[in-house]
Amino acid sequence: MPKTAITPTRADDYPEWYQQVIKAADLAENSDVRGCMVIKPWGMAIWENMQRVLDGMFKATGHENAYFPLFIPLSFLQKEADHVEGFAKECAVVTHHRLRPGPDGKLAPDPASQLEEPLIVRPTSETIIGSTYARWVESYRDLPILINQWANVVRWEMRTRLFLRTTEFLWQEGHTAHATATEAQEETMRMLAVYADFAENWIAMPVIQGEKTPGERFPGAVTTYTIEAMMQDRKALQAGTSHFLGQNFSKAQKIKFQDQTGAEQFAWTTSWGVTTRLVGALIMTHADDDGLVLPPRLAPKHVVLLPIYRSPEEKAQVLPYVESLKKELEAKEFADGKVRAMIDDRDIRGGEKNWYHVKHGVPLRAEIGPKDIAKNGVFLARRDTGEKAGVERGELVATIGQRLTEIQNNLFQRAIKFRAENTRTIDNLDDFLAFFTPKSKKEDTTEIHGGFAMCHFAEGPELDELLKKHKVTIRCIPLNGAGEGGKCFLTGRPSATRAVFAKAY
Amino acid sequence: MPKTAITPTRADDYPEWYQQVIKAADLAENSDVRGCMVIKPWGMAIWENMQRVLDGMFKATGHENAYFPLFIPLSFLQKEADHVEGFAKECAVVTHHRLRPGPDGKLAPDPASQLEEPLIVRPTSETIIGSTYARWVESYRDLPILINQWANVVRWEMRTRLFLRTTEFLWQEGHTAHATATEAQEETMRMLAVYADFAENWIAMPVIQGEKTPGERFPGAVTTYTIEAMMQDRKALQAGTSHFLGQNFSKAQKIKFQDQTGAEQFAWTTSWGVTTRLVGALIMTHADDDGLVLPPRLAPKHVVLLPIYRSPEEKAQVLPYVESLKKELEAKEFADGKVRAMIDDRDIRGGEKNWYHVKHGVPLRAEIGPKDIAKNGVFLARRDTGEKAGVERGELVATIGQRLTEIQNNLFQRAIKFRAENTRTIDNLDDFLAFFTPKSKKEDTTEIHGGFAMCHFAEGPELDELLKKHKVTIRCIPLNGAGEGGKCFLTGRPSATRAVFAKAY
Repeated sequence: MPKTAITPTRADDYPEWYQQVIKAADLAENSDVRGCMVIKPWGMAIWENMQRVLDGMFKATGHENAYFPLFIPLSFLQKEADHVEGFAKECAVVTHHRLRPGPDGKLAPDPASQLEEPLIVRPTSETIIGSTYARWVESYRDLPILINQWANVVRWEMRTRLFLRTTEFLWQEGHTAHATATEAQEETMRMLAVYADFAENWIAMPVIQGEKTPGERFPGAVTTYTIEAMMQDRKALQAGTSHFLGQNFSKAQKIKFQDQTGAEQFAWTTSWGVTTRLVGALIMTHADDDGLVLPPRLAPKHVVLLPIYRSPEEKAQVLPYVESLKKELEAKEFADGKVRAMIDDRDIRGGEKNWYHVKHGVPLRAEIGPKDIAKNGVFLARRDTGEKAGVERGELVATIGQRLTEIQNNLFQRAIKFRAENTRTIDNLDDFLAFFTPKSKKEDTTEIHGGFAMCHFAEGPELDELLKKHKVTIRCIPLNGAGEGGKCFLTGRPSATRAVFAKAY
Repeated sequence: MPKTAITPTRADDYPEWYQQVIKAADLAENSDVRGCMVIKPWGMAIWENMQRVLDGMFKATGHENAYFPLFIPLSFLQKEADHVEGFAKECAVVTHHRLRPGPDGKLAPDPASQLEEPLIVRPTSETIIGSTYARWVESYRDLPILINQWANVVRWEMRTRLFLRTTEFLWQEGHTAHATATEAQEETMRMLAVYADFAENWIAMPVIQGEKTPGERFPGAVTTYTIEAMMQDRKALQAGTSHFLGQNFSKAQKIKFQDQTGAEQFAWTTSWGVTTRLVGALIMTHADDDGLVLPPRLAPKHVVLLPIYRSPEEKAQVLPYVESLKKELEAKEFADGKVRAMIDDRDIRGGEKNWYHVKHGVPLRAEIGPKDIAKNGVFLARRDTGEKAGVERGELVATIGQRLTEIQNNLFQRAIKFRAENTRTIDNLDDFLAFFTPKSKKEDTTEIHGGFAMCHFAEGPELDELLKKHKVTIRCIPLNGAGEGGKCFLTGRPSATRAVFAKAY
């Protein structure tokens, strides 16, 4: 068996492989606070790149940023019945505003500082933002409101996993209010398309755009749309959602306006969000048994230059060469900016240094020693394919953008191929069970199995029971190409459209 | 008396004028949550510009961003004694992690979900970040750690004022760990200089760099450095701080490393931060009785184009002209990017529209109607001086960067002049009292009085009592030019240096 930089491999134990990739790439770690993570600089740099690109997309579609309070008064959550049901349960509750030393000298909440109304650390901000919009909106002239917020949110999770599900996470939440249902519906679809564009063209992660079934809707939404991606263990990951909230929240929060006829109307609202979970999605789409593989458009660094020398004389020759090459590369354009190059001149063994950057997923590594300089070139390695070859310096500088684009495209095509290979059209229960049952038949197996099953279906208790038993969920009803009618694979009842069935994160 | 866009004027009631400027410029408002603000899009855009520039400065000085938990276990605060004393008192305490419906159907904290150890919403992150660094650092090779975090923090304030003092605010906190005291001290001074550079060259706000006296130090710090600015009511505002923490936090959090000799050492740490308070500082430095005045380098928009037409024919002539002018302007460079131009084509009265942009502080307003187009020009107004003049189109495009630079410089020079006019060297108690006593002699006066008094001083109870009585504080001991010895203005005791005395925010 070939030795890999990450132990275990994906095939051996996918969940543990995921943790080890994160550790080896210095992306994040568990903190001293239950369920909360520390996002380390390399992981943060990926999230910052995601933020910058998404922020530009939001602004290009007419949105502005604002900031709303971290805390939500308890009574606000109570106003929208479904929302309470879905959200108000597991959350961080602030009950006191002062500490004081107890008899043992240790600090404790001061009973005299108990809040009249507890505050909830926001799990999402529809209620507090809605109540603000209610103050801002009087007439149709005040609409639409198109606002986004970058923020931290807290949902008290029992089982957490770095990036995928943590008690505190970072996200953006767009909240818009419109004069008509049509406009709000258009906004909902526009932002879903923005998310799909970002997922495919930046994360290089193919996604299915679709509508959630009623059971999977955001609490309080009329319709929830999602982008769903397939991870390398063939499970689905919900990568972003866009909700058409109808007038549910505007009625609960009293967002009213006078329309052009002078009549009073409730506004139509939307909300949409993506989170640091996207970093987890990126990892599980592209990383391999040697560690992280970064899509170049989001990589903190595109190319690392590794100077090689064995004497002060060689160093004096190699370093200036590497530094001038770095400057030339950094002058070239790629994606939404310039090429991001770095030099790693740390005093550690060459092999260790090379593997460090393999594990961190840097798209291109260029080794440069006296022999390479003699040929006026570098020894270049591609992270995605492992290909290595000598490249002439001028050619490298001229083609750097093209090479990075090629890697970006290769990662996307590879992910599309993987998804296609693990997607089945399934029309009967036997095939369904065979698809979703691991060969080992153990409950706690880490065997990779299943994938996306495209099935006709009819909702009902029989289907619910089957899905629950096999831990399969309906991911979404795809927006495109699922229009032909058929029969439910389980009950034979009529079905208007196929949905994507999968095990999921 | 001339009519002003803001009522009251600064002279009439400065604190109320401040609130009205914020309201008129749509910068922020109080939220439904006690002491927490909503930062509106125009205010947020200013903060985002500040963030982008500061972030670039931090990265240029070798720092990376990371993210640490919102929550701090109560016991962590207890570890550094002075820190507890200063910080652990007024804060948001999370005691439960679940809500459940009570007998009345209303949600309440579920007693079964009470946390074993309460969590504090971070008032600052030295303790949680320190405990993380303790895990990261083993050897001198792991140092320095140079990390910054952009985050929200919560300090339970009793009296709040938008931007200046709010329960929740946004900030950045740099936290660094070093192998030697010298290095940590250098870092502390480096970041103080970065803050001074940013304040003066971006906010156009002159600052005094200085050291805080022991009574004004950050709780747990060995030395605290500050930048202090004078607002237009002559009060001082602490605009940023940089702390040399010595080994206080590294001992409390056990940040230990093996040095080059193999001996175990505690690391030397620093922390430094600026907050959304800088938006308040910007307002109070530059705004006038007509509203906000934005320093161009931080303005969300540099120039607003106001098309003027009275018929569809005129509109068909004016709008294309304005749109092409906008594109030409946006192609020009200014500060760290391009010129930011906007067109306001809303269907509202011209006067109202013009005043809207005056109150929002846009540096340049260009009115463009058929008559201007006939002369191939615009009618240009400067926000800082009120100057208005016709300018030829080509000249405007060619000089836009220069004009914005001139406004930026004018604002800075004006603020320097104002500070100089209101700074006194004071050597006896009578002059001190005369300087800091309002003429009206009322307790609750809003009369603008005082300023910066440069005084020799000797710390002690007599001085403390005098300062407390007159609500004057020692802002800092300036780093430069205060080296000559003298005698305390109050007690006559020997004094090594003058300090800045002022009433303060």
